[in-house]
Amino acid sequence: MTYANVGTLGAVPGKRDELVAHLIRSSPELADAGCLLYEVGVNDDQPDTVFVAELWTSAEAHRASLELPEVKASIAEARPLLSGEFGGFAFDVLGSPLRD
Amino acid sequence: MTYANVGTLGAVPGKRDELVAHLIRSSPELADAGCLLYEVGVNDDQPDTVFVAELWTSAEAHRASLELPEVKASIAEARPLLSGEFGGFAFDVLGSPLRD
Repeated sequence: MTYANVGTLGAVPGKRDELVAHLIRSSPELADAGCLLYEVGVNDDQPDTVFVAELWTSAEAHRASLELPEVKASIAEARPLLSGEFGGFAFDVLGSPLRD
Repeated sequence: MTYANVGTLGAVPGKRDELVAHLIRSSPELADAGCLLYEVGVNDDQPDTVFVAELWTSAEAHRASLELPEVKASIAEARPLLSGEFGGFAFDVLGSPLRD
């Protein structure tokens, strides 16, 4: 079942754009791991926050991706840019009004 | 600029699945209005909540869609299913690691 993971990542003040650049760096291994969509963005009302919206083939595919060496290395590399504040939610996708 | 709108809709207790069915009913006018993605789902950890993740061609397209007669009628029809609790966030998409 398609799984959605939507979240906010707090950035160290002044490091938001660097964190965005890190997150949008091309990572084809994510698609191989079952990532269907991974959109990264900002909202200037919250200038120290990065937003992500992800879709995965399953919750298990998402969990397993966090164990990939490339993903672990990427998380380690991002750590100095993160304030430690995280938010968001996850859900199982049941459908879309854009599909019949 | 692609715009993401991600949110939670509180359902009247016992009405969650009816609200999901309402939200995923095929609505081709959304695509015509600039909706690129509209995923609806649930998380059994929050049994009275429906989750949505939307992508639009722009924030303006999203705003304008709320004025469409079909969308206004749909919102009015959903109102008895809604508890009145809403959450979530919106952001401007800057990129994706799935794209070069």
